[in-house]
Amino acid sequence: MLVRLKGFQKLVTIEEARHVFFDGLRIERKTVVVPLSEALNRVLAEDVAAEEDLPRFDRSAVDGYAVKAEDTFGASQFKPKTLKLTDSSEVKSGEAKQVWTGNSLPKGANAVLMLEHAKRVSNSELEVLVAIAPGENVSKKGEDVAKGEVAVKAGTRLKPHHLGLLAALGKSQVRVYEKPKVAVLATGNELVEVGQTPKEDQIFEVNRLVIASLCRELGAEPLDLGISKDDEREISEKIRLGLERADVVLTTGGTSVGASDLVPTVINSLGKPGVIVHGVAMRPAMPTALAIIDNKPIIVLSGNPVAAIFGFEVFARPLILKMLGVEHEPRPVVKARWTRRTTTALGRRTFVRVRVFQQGGEFYAEPISARGSGIISTMTKANGYVVVPENREGIEEGETVLVHLFDAVEVADENV
Amino acid sequence: MLVRLKGFQKLVTIEEARHVFFDGLRIERKTVVVPLSEALNRVLAEDVAAEEDLPRFDRSAVDGYAVKAEDTFGASQFKPKTLKLTDSSEVKSGEAKQVWTGNSLPKGANAVLMLEHAKRVSNSELEVLVAIAPGENVSKKGEDVAKGEVAVKAGTRLKPHHLGLLAALGKSQVRVYEKPKVAVLATGNELVEVGQTPKEDQIFEVNRLVIASLCRELGAEPLDLGISKDDEREISEKIRLGLERADVVLTTGGTSVGASDLVPTVINSLGKPGVIVHGVAMRPAMPTALAIIDNKPIIVLSGNPVAAIFGFEVFARPLILKMLGVEHEPRPVVKARWTRRTTTALGRRTFVRVRVFQQGGEFYAEPISARGSGIISTMTKANGYVVVPENREGIEEGETVLVHLFDAVEVADENV
Repeated sequence: MLVRLKGFQKLVTIEEARHVFFDGLRIERKTVVVPLSEALNRVLAEDVAAEEDLPRFDRSAVDGYAVKAEDTFGASQFKPKTLKLTDSSEVKSGEAKQVWTGNSLPKGANAVLMLEHAKRVSNSELEVLVAIAPGENVSKKGEDVAKGEVAVKAGTRLKPHHLGLLAALGKSQVRVYEKPKVAVLATGNELVEVGQTPKEDQIFEVNRLVIASLCRELGAEPLDLGISKDDEREISEKIRLGLERADVVLTTGGTSVGASDLVPTVINSLGKPGVIVHGVAMRPAMPTALAIIDNKPIIVLSGNPVAAIFGFEVFARPLILKMLGVEHEPRPVVKARWTRRTTTALGRRTFVRVRVFQQGGEFYAEPISARGSGIISTMTKANGYVVVPENREGIEEGETVLVHLFDAVEVADENV
Repeated sequence: MLVRLKGFQKLVTIEEARHVFFDGLRIERKTVVVPLSEALNRVLAEDVAAEEDLPRFDRSAVDGYAVKAEDTFGASQFKPKTLKLTDSSEVKSGEAKQVWTGNSLPKGANAVLMLEHAKRVSNSELEVLVAIAPGENVSKKGEDVAKGEVAVKAGTRLKPHHLGLLAALGKSQVRVYEKPKVAVLATGNELVEVGQTPKEDQIFEVNRLVIASLCRELGAEPLDLGISKDDEREISEKIRLGLERADVVLTTGGTSVGASDLVPTVINSLGKPGVIVHGVAMRPAMPTALAIIDNKPIIVLSGNPVAAIFGFEVFARPLILKMLGVEHEPRPVVKARWTRRTTTALGRRTFVRVRVFQQGGEFYAEPISARGSGIISTMTKANGYVVVPENREGIEEGETVLVHLFDAVEVADENV
């Protein structure tokens, strides 16, 4: 099943590459129990069902008076009805009992009159200013989640509102998937650590920080393997360390077809099956390689920062999500109108960085650049990207495109 | 400038409320220098300009051969041109020098021929298979960021690609705004801590966890003040502690017009100006109160979890963003078609929870519920909300709406 293609004479599609890569992997997930207060953004590893009805009892949804709805029928501001206030645990015909939001509904009552719809005429009497229907302002027992019902499904990324629902069910801890450990290695003789002084011809190494940050955003745990020279032995030792300590290894640089094509060669010497994809019909990130060593995935990303980001987006992101137990977690998208004719290469899936903005209620996507994969400011000027399929030669001005967002869009009109 | 309105007889609009609240506050931000590796999602406190050109030198963007572009003119696969390979530091007419991605361009060269567009015919000779233009495959000195140019502006939330650009400029640390400390207090006699056993009539306290998680998502630091009984002295002590230790205090519960309306009363006893807004023309979260004590903001949220979330969204979120130094950070939005006629109350801005889904390339927004602010599962069933203005009575089926997303949307077609 070796799809490695010498010299990129024939590139494989993104789908073929993902197919052989993910099919060749047996993903084993570990789980861990964490307190609910530490579960934000973790991924739930088992369905959580309600052990009791939520609410556990019929509950007032407002501050007001528990009544029999029938007693309010016909009441209005001009023709109020009068009810007797009670302190008893049961509300009888002609009676009302004061309740606060969240209080259980007293026996006999079937609705709650809001405070502002009642007028206290004495310590013992109340005027009803509106008619209300049975059930009004009452949260019925089990209305939120019924006993036995699954409240939050396995595979859910826990957002604040999920934590709220789990807390409402009384769950103080939950079982989540462990964070995958991702080892990150940069390779290249030209690289120098940020903070040091570069010699002529040297550049600062940026990819480890970018890749580690992308891992953190997803909820994975990066492990820094540092920088390696373009040296077979050093690369080999570092990747081996990564394979030992982490669940995935990501490397950057040294993926091209030339003499600096060291990383794929080293990987093939480490075990089986080795490199299974090398060269993908995409732009940027064409020289990306995918490898598996003893069921551990390795993704060899380009040394160009923009290409490394898109190689990560297309291969590492879905891999890490799978390891996290999330089946699919698309980025936010927005439909936008293309501002300027752009050409792309036939036969390559092209990821065009764009700046989306809103004007007159309409969204527009301004292409920043389809090229220059070393120019990292094209990423900071953009807030999303558009995917141009292999069978297209570009996008025409005025076309509607789907933009995948990686940063915020200025929104002018907040309303419908 | 007291806009507090007894008994909510007249509610203030969201704009009025924000106006008096934010105008009454003098926000003072502190800054701190952090290593770049710890700056993800922090907010940059000063413009960062390039101290040198990026790249610092003309650089090859690919693996290949540095040439004089003129020497390739007229070359094709069928009529290749031959160049002599050189090892010298300068490329002369008729010569080519091998370079790797990121290498500085040798003197005399003005373009780089990609490896796959050349054929090595001997150790000293090369066939050129395509013509290339001057500048092709070269990253020009300063092309990414020119010396002195601002690369990342103050107020930018630092995403992985911003960190990459800052690293490329050699910045190993950056000045960011300090994380605002947000004290969170829940009030209510009916509340019991998650993990404990509720008595009849008690419910689990969920708001502190939800609010703290929303704060964490924004990059603020929550401080837990626990649960307080509906007791003036206890509430007073806890809010005072919050004012001492935090930059903002958020409370939930006890905001209604009735006898449990303790929190606003307590706040007014703590200092000046006290409660400046109480009751907002919105749904949910109508009973929200906004207060300032000695230039420290307090937001009194509803005890109903959904109302607490929307009160947070409308008032606490923009406040915390201001404190973080972010001028505006809208949630992702998507335009969608409304699936089912929904009515809303005139005179209230209504936040309708919706589930957005994609079908046949079109986005649809299915209303989950415009009511039931105690029903927290309406938040987990939804992935966004639609804002219906005060002057509308609802949304018709088929209308196009703008959805603000707080969770992922399933996207079926990834392409244009």
